[in-house]
Amino acid sequence: MARILITGAHGFIGRYLARHLSENGHVVCGLGHGIWPPLHAERWGLTLWHNGEIDGLNLRLIQRKSGTPDIVYHLGGGSSVGVAIANPREDFHRTVNSTAELLEWLRLEAPDCRLVAISSAAVYGANHEGPIAETTITKPFSPYGHHKSIMESLCQSYCDTYGLKIAIARLFSVYGEGLRKQLLWDVCSQLERNPDRLGLGGEGTELRDWIEVGDVARALSLIEAQANQSRTVVNVGTGTGTSVRSIVEMVVDAWFEREAYRPNIIFSGEARKGDPQSLVADSTRLKALGFDLRSDLKDRLSAYVGWFQSEAGTAR
Amino acid sequence: MARILITGAHGFIGRYLARHLSENGHVVCGLGHGIWPPLHAERWGLTLWHNGEIDGLNLRLIQRKSGTPDIVYHLGGGSSVGVAIANPREDFHRTVNSTAELLEWLRLEAPDCRLVAISSAAVYGANHEGPIAETTITKPFSPYGHHKSIMESLCQSYCDTYGLKIAIARLFSVYGEGLRKQLLWDVCSQLERNPDRLGLGGEGTELRDWIEVGDVARALSLIEAQANQSRTVVNVGTGTGTSVRSIVEMVVDAWFEREAYRPNIIFSGEARKGDPQSLVADSTRLKALGFDLRSDLKDRLSAYVGWFQSEAGTAR
Repeated sequence: MARILITGAHGFIGRYLARHLSENGHVVCGLGHGIWPPLHAERWGLTLWHNGEIDGLNLRLIQRKSGTPDIVYHLGGGSSVGVAIANPREDFHRTVNSTAELLEWLRLEAPDCRLVAISSAAVYGANHEGPIAETTITKPFSPYGHHKSIMESLCQSYCDTYGLKIAIARLFSVYGEGLRKQLLWDVCSQLERNPDRLGLGGEGTELRDWIEVGDVARALSLIEAQANQSRTVVNVGTGTGTSVRSIVEMVVDAWFEREAYRPNIIFSGEARKGDPQSLVADSTRLKALGFDLRSDLKDRLSAYVGWFQSEAGTAR
Repeated sequence: MARILITGAHGFIGRYLARHLSENGHVVCGLGHGIWPPLHAERWGLTLWHNGEIDGLNLRLIQRKSGTPDIVYHLGGGSSVGVAIANPREDFHRTVNSTAELLEWLRLEAPDCRLVAISSAAVYGANHEGPIAETTITKPFSPYGHHKSIMESLCQSYCDTYGLKIAIARLFSVYGEGLRKQLLWDVCSQLERNPDRLGLGGEGTELRDWIEVGDVARALSLIEAQANQSRTVVNVGTGTGTSVRSIVEMVVDAWFEREAYRPNIIFSGEARKGDPQSLVADSTRLKALGFDLRSDLKDRLSAYVGWFQSEAGTAR
């Protein structure tokens, strides 16, 4: 049994991680933004949820109430490339300043606690072909990617100088029931409004490494043991790239089920800002930690569509 | 005539830069921390000094009073490796948050203004031999170096995504009259207290690229024209390394002038934290901009000693 703190636990990935960890017998607290009735937080596996800024004072407050954690998963931070482009200051604050506060609190108040910092494949930037290894030189090209990369640098600084024990998890394209943004949400929302026509940015050929949120939760709990003073980095992806067009077609198939009807799918052909052509993980390291992929992409996309329709009240 | 804003103008380098620019006919304002009587600020070439945090509100305030600048020199930020190790949060705030605020203000309120961001040779880290080119992969190993490197990443992010025009100046070992810290100050302070014995950290063999603050001011004003949307980086150094021991001996020679007497100089042999063995600039780029080195190291060290003695009232 470990004492665990999750920042950003109220977010899409955070709550799945909280549930996974509590189901494995750990005591889980959470800090971050979001109004979360205690009963709901409890159902997701949290013994305490503190709605507030990730800063030294709030971290200290949770520590007084619940004791010093053995592990922190830092999921708090900006979560959208587009939002970060529109308001880089806010994304910087959420991603970088929260990390600066967290690291300083660890240094001063919890130096033995291990940290898993959640980064993103966006740190790799564009111009990659095939699986990207963790040793690849990072070259972000969106503010979101830059801020995640800066977060990693700060972690490295605190490893180097103060001996904090840190692992960095670089997440690829995480999806699953409860995700209310990005491609899947967009496709379902469009189909809900107009089942005849789907209009999407990009070319449809963009490759992404889709990994289901339940698999991500298990991956993160494996990576935790790798936290050390030289900052281990682990990609969280399946190792397989799937084109946006394929994903869209699978969602459409699930949406219409056995109907013969299919909408017109139109890609604008214009790359979205900050959107690289290919982001696929070299997942050798993750697999070496004993990770086994459990979810089937087609099945889980179908489950997503089911969740969306039930959520939207359009289930048939 | 250009309208110029200098952040950190009250600091050691800032005031020399302000004087140099105002002597060349420019209108210079300043923002940063420090109580500076208007008459004194004026003597250093400033038409306006605003004592305050480098943030959006203060930048906007200066803009309203003095108009939108054509050029910003961003010298504000932490200025000591040792202080940054002792209090990384403060150094992070000074160096990184000030830059985040400045870039955001430029993006929203002054997108045509050129920025010269003052970075440091500390971004290169340790394990270098011979002159370091700007294209070398940076690998800081102190919080101070990490924060300067993060500052550079933020600048790159704003170039890439918002087209800001930026040049990065990586300063090597800047010295000159008025510098109240680091090796020269330490040696003079020790000699003042006890002329018999000088005790210093490190081995004395550490190589640094010493450049006089007047030369730095001229270098920075040359680099300004290089500010562009792909972020030009220029080393500010002479290209020549001088050992710490040689520097100390020159200071001692100047201190005792024609006396035959010399103190016992003892190096601890233990490297100071965050202190690489060799930091010498490849100054090809700077020279290609037309930079000519004007100051002689020995002469200027002698002038420093004279300034220290007159400052301390020990001039003989």
